[in-house]
Amino acid sequence: MACAESSPDLSPEVSPADRVDALYQFTPTKLGKSSEHEHFTQDSTFGASTAAAARCRSSNKAWRKRLVKSLQRPWRRQQLQPSWETVRTVELQEEERNLIAQQQAHGCCLSWCWAIQNWLLAASVGVVCFATYGVIEISVGALSSFRFGFCQAEPLRSEEHCPKGQWISWGANIIGFSASVCLGTWMATASAFIVSRFAPTASGSGIPEVKTILNGFVLPDVATFRTLLIKVPCLILAVASGLSLGHEGPMVHVAVCWANILSRLFPQFRNEGKRQQLFSAAVAAGVSSAFGTPVGGVLFSLEEVSSNFPSRTLLMAFVSSVVATLLLSVSDLTGTGHLTLYSVRYTVTCHPSDYVMFAVLGVAGGLVGALFNALNIRWCAFKAKPAFKRWIGPVQEASILAFVTLVSSWPLSLTRYLMAPTIHALFDTCSDEPGETVRSRLQAEFGLCTEDGYSNSFGDGLLTSLGFAAALRFCQMVLTIGSACPAGLFVPSLFIGACLGRCLALGLKALHAGTRLFPNKVDPGVYSMVGAASVLGGVSRMTISLVVIMLELTGGLDYVVPFMISVLLAKAVGDSLNEGIYDLQIVLKGYPFLHEELDVTFTERCCDVMETGLVKLDVKLRTRFLDIGVMVRAFTFRGFPVVDGDRFVGYVRRSALEDWLSRMELVRGQNEVVTMEDLVSIIDSTVMRMVPDAPLTQAHQVFKQLGCQRIFIVGSVPGGQQDLLRGILTKKSFLKFLQDGTVGAFCCRTSGRAAFCAEA
Amino acid sequence: MACAESSPDLSPEVSPADRVDALYQFTPTKLGKSSEHEHFTQDSTFGASTAAAARCRSSNKAWRKRLVKSLQRPWRRQQLQPSWETVRTVELQEEERNLIAQQQAHGCCLSWCWAIQNWLLAASVGVVCFATYGVIEISVGALSSFRFGFCQAEPLRSEEHCPKGQWISWGANIIGFSASVCLGTWMATASAFIVSRFAPTASGSGIPEVKTILNGFVLPDVATFRTLLIKVPCLILAVASGLSLGHEGPMVHVAVCWANILSRLFPQFRNEGKRQQLFSAAVAAGVSSAFGTPVGGVLFSLEEVSSNFPSRTLLMAFVSSVVATLLLSVSDLTGTGHLTLYSVRYTVTCHPSDYVMFAVLGVAGGLVGALFNALNIRWCAFKAKPAFKRWIGPVQEASILAFVTLVSSWPLSLTRYLMAPTIHALFDTCSDEPGETVRSRLQAEFGLCTEDGYSNSFGDGLLTSLGFAAALRFCQMVLTIGSACPAGLFVPSLFIGACLGRCLALGLKALHAGTRLFPNKVDPGVYSMVGAASVLGGVSRMTISLVVIMLELTGGLDYVVPFMISVLLAKAVGDSLNEGIYDLQIVLKGYPFLHEELDVTFTERCCDVMETGLVKLDVKLRTRFLDIGVMVRAFTFRGFPVVDGDRFVGYVRRSALEDWLSRMELVRGQNEVVTMEDLVSIIDSTVMRMVPDAPLTQAHQVFKQLGCQRIFIVGSVPGGQQDLLRGILTKKSFLKFLQDGTVGAFCCRTSGRAAFCAEA
Repeated sequence: MACAESSPDLSPEVSPADRVDALYQFTPTKLGKSSEHEHFTQDSTFGASTAAAARCRSSNKAWRKRLVKSLQRPWRRQQLQPSWETVRTVELQEEERNLIAQQQAHGCCLSWCWAIQNWLLAASVGVVCFATYGVIEISVGALSSFRFGFCQAEPLRSEEHCPKGQWISWGANIIGFSASVCLGTWMATASAFIVSRFAPTASGSGIPEVKTILNGFVLPDVATFRTLLIKVPCLILAVASGLSLGHEGPMVHVAVCWANILSRLFPQFRNEGKRQQLFSAAVAAGVSSAFGTPVGGVLFSLEEVSSNFPSRTLLMAFVSSVVATLLLSVSDLTGTGHLTLYSVRYTVTCHPSDYVMFAVLGVAGGLVGALFNALNIRWCAFKAKPAFKRWIGPVQEASILAFVTLVSSWPLSLTRYLMAPTIHALFDTCSDEPGETVRSRLQAEFGLCTEDGYSNSFGDGLLTSLGFAAALRFCQMVLTIGSACPAGLFVPSLFIGACLGRCLALGLKALHAGTRLFPNKVDPGVYSMVGAASVLGGVSRMTISLVVIMLELTGGLDYVVPFMISVLLAKAVGDSLNEGIYDLQIVLKGYPFLHEELDVTFTERCCDVMETGLVKLDVKLRTRFLDIGVMVRAFTFRGFPVVDGDRFVGYVRRSALEDWLSRMELVRGQNEVVTMEDLVSIIDSTVMRMVPDAPLTQAHQVFKQLGCQRIFIVGSVPGGQQDLLRGILTKKSFLKFLQDGTVGAFCCRTSGRAAFCAEA
Repeated sequence: MACAESSPDLSPEVSPADRVDALYQFTPTKLGKSSEHEHFTQDSTFGASTAAAARCRSSNKAWRKRLVKSLQRPWRRQQLQPSWETVRTVELQEEERNLIAQQQAHGCCLSWCWAIQNWLLAASVGVVCFATYGVIEISVGALSSFRFGFCQAEPLRSEEHCPKGQWISWGANIIGFSASVCLGTWMATASAFIVSRFAPTASGSGIPEVKTILNGFVLPDVATFRTLLIKVPCLILAVASGLSLGHEGPMVHVAVCWANILSRLFPQFRNEGKRQQLFSAAVAAGVSSAFGTPVGGVLFSLEEVSSNFPSRTLLMAFVSSVVATLLLSVSDLTGTGHLTLYSVRYTVTCHPSDYVMFAVLGVAGGLVGALFNALNIRWCAFKAKPAFKRWIGPVQEASILAFVTLVSSWPLSLTRYLMAPTIHALFDTCSDEPGETVRSRLQAEFGLCTEDGYSNSFGDGLLTSLGFAAALRFCQMVLTIGSACPAGLFVPSLFIGACLGRCLALGLKALHAGTRLFPNKVDPGVYSMVGAASVLGGVSRMTISLVVIMLELTGGLDYVVPFMISVLLAKAVGDSLNEGIYDLQIVLKGYPFLHEELDVTFTERCCDVMETGLVKLDVKLRTRFLDIGVMVRAFTFRGFPVVDGDRFVGYVRRSALEDWLSRMELVRGQNEVVTMEDLVSIIDSTVMRMVPDAPLTQAHQVFKQLGCQRIFIVGSVPGGQQDLLRGILTKKSFLKFLQDGTVGAFCCRTSGRAAFCAEA
C-alpha cells in the first residue's frame, strides 16, 4: 500500500476491485463457491443418443427401469449434497512429478531418507492396525459375552477366556432373553447416537469412501482423527450388540484413518499421490489384521479398493500386511496357534459331481448376492427420503433394528450368536472329541453334529433351521447395512452362505440315500465353505482376492478349485443382474467415481463439454502484485490458468502463487507490474492440453489412466489467434456429465449403473 | 490409366513417380526399410545431463560401471539385430475403440456372441494347456527314468509308475554312470539341435518374449505353431536329459503359442488388443497347469508378465486357470490326490527367533539371486560374441554342458536327480514310515532322515553335501540358462534355495545344542521351503505371486508370514544390486520394453526428439487415386498422416487405405482427384496430438498408460500457419532414445539398467 506511487502506468482512479474485474470475466455467482474450476454449465444439452444405444436401451427389462427410477430420485438429491460440491480431485501425476523434481534438487541423501520414511510408515501402519484390531477384538469379546453371562473371577473377561467353572450364564430363559435384548439394544443405540452426533462419516463400512479417495478424489472428514476416535468404540458397541454386522470391513476404514494421521508426521506425504499409495497399503493392513490374511489383504486392496496400483504400492501394501500379520501371529490373539481364523482339516477329495454342485452353489450365491444388493440399496434409498427421516431418525432406527434383530435371533441357537466361532462351527467337520472346544460345543448345540462326532443328516429338522437362519440373517442384513452404526458385511454374508451350503449338502445326502448320482461322500463343511465364498462373492463381486481370503481363512488349499468356480459363477450371475454393493453404495451416496468403463462410447468432442468463462491471470493486462493478491483472496479455486493476451502460457497452482506472492512482497512493491519473467518460475507449462476438436474418448482415457485433474482446451481461431485458451475440462465435471448421462452412450450393458445413465 | 484425360489440372508430363515425390519429402534410404514411421534421427544430440544426475552417477560403484561396460557391447550389437527393426508396436487403445464401434454397428446379438467366444476361448486355452502339460509330464517321467533303469513289464513306464519289483536299475556303478551321461548328453544335444535348426525362438523359457509381446510389441515367430511344435518335444528332451532346468517356465510360452493358434479361429481376435488379453490369460493357464497353482498363475500373469491387466483380463485368466486346474485335479496326474505338488504337513509354530532367521534367509536368497543374475547375464553376453560363436556353436555348447552337468551331478545323490520328488523330499518333514513313498526313500538316500523317521542333524556330513549340492547346482544353472534348449529356472532355483535353507537349519540345530538363543524346535523342512522362496524371489523378483505359488505348492498356509518376509527381503536386497532375470534377458536380447519407470525424469520437450521428414498424404496437392496407389506400394509404413495443405487432418491406417482404394477404384477413375470428402470416412482424427513444447514426461505417460503407438506433434508457427504437423513421436523411437540414454535422467537408482542408460 505504501508503494502505491510506484505504479505510474495505471490511472489512479481505478480501484483494486475494479482492476480485478478487468482482469478476468467476473462471475459473482461462482465466487468462492466451488474450490476448483468446476462450474457445471447448466444449459448444455446433448441429444446424442445414437440409434444403437436406443436399441439396446429398449432391451432392458421393464422392472429394471422401474427399479432405477425409484432409486434415481434420492440419488440425485444426495448428489447435490455438499459432499459432491466440496469434493476435489487430486493431480496424482503432476504431484508425482513435483516430488521427483524436489528430490532431484536435494540430491541422493534426501531421497534415501524419504525411501526409509516410506517403508517405516508402511510398517507402522501395520503396527497400529494390529494394535487397533487387538483392542477391538478383546473389547468385542468381553462386551458381547456380557450379553449372555459374566465371568465370576474376572468380570470383564469373555466366555472363551474365562477360567473353567467361573462362567455364569444368564440362562436361556426369560432373564437371559431380556438381558441380551436390552443390553444389545442399548449398545446399538449408543453406537448410532455417537456416530450420528459426532462423526457421521464413521457410519457403515467406509469402503465406498476409501474407494472414492483412492479413485483420486478428496472426501473431507473421512480419514480424520475424529472419525477414527468415534469409529473404533462405536464399532465395538455395534458388533457387541448382536446386530447382523461384522467388524472386518470397517477395519479398512480404521486403517486408512491411521495412515492419514501418521502421514502427517512426514513432510513428503503432503503430496496427495504419495498419501494415496499409503492408503492403499493401509487397506491391505486393515484386512490382514482383521482376518489374518496377508496375501488376501494385499489382493483386496489391489482388486477391490484401489484404482491405481503400481508395483511400488504393491510393495508397501506387502510390508504393511506382513507387519500386521506377523504381530498377529506372534501375539496369537485367536489362541489357536494358527493364523487361519476358521482353520479346517478336511481329507475329502472332490468328485466331478461335486464340482457340478459347487457350480450350483456359485449361481445361488450370485443370485442371493444380487438380491441382497437390490433390496439393500432400495431400502437405503427409501431411508434417505426426507419423509422417512422426519419420521424416524438414525438413532431410533438403530434401536428398533437392534430390538427386532435380537428378538428374532433369539429362538434359534444358530442365529443367537454371530461371531467367528459360529461360522467356524459351520465350516468345520465334526470333532472326534465333542465338547472339547467352543466350536464343537456350538456344533452340538446347533445340531450339526451328533454326540459321537458324526455330522447330522437330513431328518432332524436341521435343514429347516439352517434355511430359516439364512433367511432371517438375510433380512436382518438388508435392514442393517446402511444404518448409522459402523457395519461390515463380510461376516453376515459368510454366515448366510455357510447355512445355504450346508442346506445343499444335506439335500444331497438325502438324495444320495436313494440314487447313485453322487457317489462321493458329501461333507457338509466343504459345501458350507464354498457357499460362504459364493454369497460373499455375489454381494461384493470380488474374485481373486476373495478366493485367497477364503484360502487363508480356512486353510483348505485342496479346495481352491471349488472356491474359484463358485466365486467366478457368483460374479458372472451377479454382474448380469446388478453391480457390487460397494459400487452401488458409491452411486447412492453420490460420490464421484470414474469407473473402468469399457463399453461406453463418446460421440462428443471436448469443446462440447468444456467449461468456458474462466478466471484467468492475464499478464498482458499489466497486472500488479496487489491485483494478484486480491484475485487469490477473491476466488477459492485451486489454481489459475495464465495467459499472455490470448496465448495460453500455463497453469499456476494456488499454493505456489501464494508462496510466490509472499516472497515477492518482500522484494517488490505491491503496485509494481508483474511481468512474465516474474511468473515463469511458478507456471506449470507441462499441463495436459488438447485441441477443441479432440474426441471426448481421448479425454476419458487421460482422466482414467493418467490421473490428470484437468485438461486445457487450447486451439486457434481462424483469423490469426494461436494457442488460445478455449476452456477447461475437469475430471469432476466430466464425471458429472457421465453420471448424468449427458455424454457417452452405454451399449448392451446389463448392469444397474448403465441403466441409470441411459435413463437420465 | 484409361482416365488420364480426366485430370486436366496437372501437366501431363509429370510421371506418377514424380508426382509421388512431389507429394511428400521422398527419402530413398528409408524406402521400404522400416514398417512404421520409425526412422531414428541419427544426428540428434542431447547434452541434457543435469548436475543432479551427474552427482548420482558418480555415486555408483566402480565395479558396477565395469560390469555395465562389459555388458553393453554385446547388448548393443544384439539390439541392432533384425528383431528390433521388425518389431511393431500395437495400438491397443485404438484397436479397442474400433472393436467397440464394430460391435455397436452390429447390435447386441454380435456382442453376445463375441462375449461367449471370449469365455469359450479362455476355457479352451486352459484345456489345451492341461493336455500339453500332461503329455510333457508323462514323457519326461518316462524318458528321465530311462536314464537310470527300465521297467521290465512296460518299458516306457517311469520308475514311479512301474509295478513293484519290475524296475531294473542300471545300478550306481560305472554302467549306470555311463548310461545316464550318454543318454542325457544325447537328449540335450538333440534338443539343442532341433531348436537351433528349426525354431530358434523356442529356446529359453520364453518369458522375456511373452513379456515383450504383452508390453505392446509384436515379435514375429514367437507364438507360432512351428515354435510350439518344436518347443514341446525339445522341452521334454531337455528336462529328461538331467540339465539344470525345469519345464514350468516354458509352459508359459507353450500356453501363449496355443492362445495365438486358437485365437485365429475367431475373427474378433484379429484385433491385437484382444489377443493380448487372451495371452495374459494363457500365461495364467500355463503356470496353473505346470504347478497346479490356479491363483498363483493368475497373479504371476498379473505381476510379472502382463503390462496391462484390466478386470476383464483378470476374469479371463481366472477362467483359463480354473479350467486347467480343474482338469489337473480330476485327472490326478501327480497321483497324490492333492493339487499341491509339494504338499507338506507341518505342525511347528514359528517362534520370533525363527522370523529373524527367515529374514536372514531372505537376505541370503536376494544375494544369491542377484549373483546368479549378474553371472548368468554376463555369461550370456560373452556367448553372444561372434568369436565365441565361431568357436562353439549352440549344439556343441549344449552337448558339453550336458556332459559336464551329468558328470558333476553323479557323485552326490542329492544332485543326481532333479525333479519334483527331490525338492519335495527337501521340503517335507521325515515320514513316520520310511521307505513307503519315493519321497521318503529319497530322504533316506540323501541322508536327510534317519532310519526311524527323524531328521538327521549336523554331524553326518549332511551340511557339506547340502552346501556342495547348492553350489554345484548354482554353477550349472548359471551356465544352462540362456543355452539353446528350452529351459525354465523355477525348479533349479527352488532346489538351490531348499539346500541353503536346510543348511541354515542344520547350523541352527548345532547352535541350539549349546545356547538358548533359539528356544524353538527347528524343523529343517520349513527352512528349506522359505529358502526356496527367497532364492526364487532373488532371481525373478516376484513378490505376491511367488508367495501364493509357494503356498499353493506346499499347502503351508501357516507359513505365509515367513514366505512374505523372505520374499520381500530377497526382492529388496536383489533390487539394490541389479534387476530381475527376465528384465535383464529383455535388455540382453535387445527387445523393446517400456518399463514402469518411476525415477526417470525428462528435461526434453517433444519437439526435441520427434521425427521430421514424414511421408504425408497431402490433399491440397490435387492427388489422384493413382498417386495414392503408388504411394501405398512405395512405402511399407503402417499408415500415413493426412494433411490439407499445412493443416493436419488425421491419420489413415494402411489397411483402411488399401480397402478404400480397392473400393474406390470400382466407382471412380484412377486419375480423378481425391477430395477431402472422399477420404473423410477413413481418416482417424482422434489420434493423440501434442504441442511441440509439450514436455516429454507427458509423452512418456501417454505411451506407458494409454497404449498409444504414436503422438502427432501439431503446432503453429508464428506467422499464421495453424495446426501444422511438425513431426511424429512413436513409442518405439521414444524407447530407443530412452534405452540409448539420449533422453531421460535416472536419479539415485541403484539398478543395473539405470546404470546402463547413465553410461550410454
